[in-house]
Amino acid sequence: MSSPAVHQKIPAGFICKTECISLLDQTRLPTEERYLEITNIEEAYAAILRLSVRGAPAIAIFAAHALAQEARQLSRSGLGSVEARSRLLAACQRLDSSRPTAVNLGHAMRRMELLIKGSGGDEATETLAARLTAEAGAIEAEDQKQCQLTANFAASLIEPGSKVMTICHTGAIATAGVGTALGGMHVAHQQGKAPRVFACETRPLLQGARLTAWELSRSGVPVTLLTDSMAAHVMQDEGIDLVMVGADRIVANGDSANKIGTFGLAVLAKHFGIPFYVVAPSTTLDPTIRNGKLIVIEERAGTEVRGFRSEQTAPPDVPVRNPAFDVTPAELIEAIITDTGIHRPPYSF
Amino acid sequence: MSSPAVHQKIPAGFICKTECISLLDQTRLPTEERYLEITNIEEAYAAILRLSVRGAPAIAIFAAHALAQEARQLSRSGLGSVEARSRLLAACQRLDSSRPTAVNLGHAMRRMELLIKGSGGDEATETLAARLTAEAGAIEAEDQKQCQLTANFAASLIEPGSKVMTICHTGAIATAGVGTALGGMHVAHQQGKAPRVFACETRPLLQGARLTAWELSRSGVPVTLLTDSMAAHVMQDEGIDLVMVGADRIVANGDSANKIGTFGLAVLAKHFGIPFYVVAPSTTLDPTIRNGKLIVIEERAGTEVRGFRSEQTAPPDVPVRNPAFDVTPAELIEAIITDTGIHRPPYSF
Repeated sequence: MSSPAVHQKIPAGFICKTECISLLDQTRLPTEERYLEITNIEEAYAAILRLSVRGAPAIAIFAAHALAQEARQLSRSGLGSVEARSRLLAACQRLDSSRPTAVNLGHAMRRMELLIKGSGGDEATETLAARLTAEAGAIEAEDQKQCQLTANFAASLIEPGSKVMTICHTGAIATAGVGTALGGMHVAHQQGKAPRVFACETRPLLQGARLTAWELSRSGVPVTLLTDSMAAHVMQDEGIDLVMVGADRIVANGDSANKIGTFGLAVLAKHFGIPFYVVAPSTTLDPTIRNGKLIVIEERAGTEVRGFRSEQTAPPDVPVRNPAFDVTPAELIEAIITDTGIHRPPYSF
Repeated sequence: MSSPAVHQKIPAGFICKTECISLLDQTRLPTEERYLEITNIEEAYAAILRLSVRGAPAIAIFAAHALAQEARQLSRSGLGSVEARSRLLAACQRLDSSRPTAVNLGHAMRRMELLIKGSGGDEATETLAARLTAEAGAIEAEDQKQCQLTANFAASLIEPGSKVMTICHTGAIATAGVGTALGGMHVAHQQGKAPRVFACETRPLLQGARLTAWELSRSGVPVTLLTDSMAAHVMQDEGIDLVMVGADRIVANGDSANKIGTFGLAVLAKHFGIPFYVVAPSTTLDPTIRNGKLIVIEERAGTEVRGFRSEQTAPPDVPVRNPAFDVTPAELIEAIITDTGIHRPPYSF
């Protein structure tokens, strides 16, 4: 994972080694920059589930590398090739089931499955492992390139001196490259446009506070942090020029699933007449789903809402809602920016 | 402070004793129900500042009691009556300066000041102290009565089985009585209307999670907690019927200052066609201010946004915004409910 200008200042999200994947534990940021050693599928699954790695592209790339690593281990174990293929297909399904809302993970696992199913029974597991390793590398390289293209298009929408509001984290460590929405802000900054970013903290897991504020501080982009509840007041009081967010799944009609809170920001932006942009690589498109009502929304554990880390903030038994995502209807989206360009409504993907 | 049906289940916000005011430290809820002993003006000022007592009516009543206590102490000290009056007037100003946005505190301090200024120089400080003590008691009794009237009107707007969304805490321990907006939900529950409350957690200080979820759990009203960022999704997904919030200052044209996040909820409610109600006793009205643009908004310390209690959630030096309140324009408000009735636009207070 390397996008030269940005990654000089920001640590890599993960590093593939011979025996393991060294994974930056995003749950510990910004207080600790700690790497976990991921050595098997169950550890990879658990890392995705607890959000040590998150961001739709990063999850997909990490899962592909974890699968390639598993194949290399099976090849060294001397297991028969039929059994090895069966285990690898099960591993694809296991990883794919970790989080349901983002589409990129499914895309990556389908690509790995195709290779496994397409390999003849007489092909040595070692050869398959090499091909899966190359495929994971290709998925990563493609994402890096797509991010750069996407970020360049997004940056073209940012006027000099703009105040940009965003939510969650869509930067370098959420992808293999410069990021998506945040990538646009990184590129605009590199182009000397001096954007100012207003980052919503993104409860319950505070990716905006922990990751976006940290990444922009590291890369020198001026950032101001606010709680999600301040968005309306700050849009009006600061004169926000545009809202730019990522996506986890963009369906045929343009409805876009993204981090919980995004839909609310889109409604507020509409109210104030502020353009609202969704930025994501084309791997995030899912034309197989007609509209946003059909997107499965992950509902996570109530403990995430009842506190943060060691601090309990609510009665321990109070019922909670904890959808991890919401769906912004296409009519609230000014444009959807991907690596293929700036798409305007009516959307048809 | 006693509203019989509710306060059987919820501890008192404060208890006036001979030598001190015993104050429920709201910053420790819901994990601890701890009382602080407040013995002088500086302790009272600090308690308001750090939100050990909060809620516009409760702050005003607490400050009045603190002033009466100070007068009793000065009377016992044998200080000359001129010097005692001068100290009491300074104490009024000191307490009044603790928080700028709510109007109730100013109202209460003006009443105390009038008594102090109106008392003849030959009146014994003991007599003045007794009159100030009675006045504080009167302010408290009036608030209790106003809350009940206000809550009754608010409850009349809640249909059986309604799903009500709210933000911050507007219940018993924010007032001397049953509460304001939450009072309406308490009363509707007592009337057998079985409302279901959806409480926004209210970052940064989480009054919704810590206080509203706790108070409703204690009094048996079904409550579901959500992060502020979930409001749009939950309004749509749960089919919220109405939004009911409190206020800290309602100005002549109906523009209403309330906890940060309220304005955003009002915009969302408008988008979904959900009625948005502001509920407050008439002491919250401020006809001296023409419109909401002229309301002073308190900006609090950045540390509140960069973490919660012991948990740091953002880089320690990242710039933040931390307005404690926002202003909801009158055109987003379906009705303003006070102890005098249900007021509909155009508002003219």
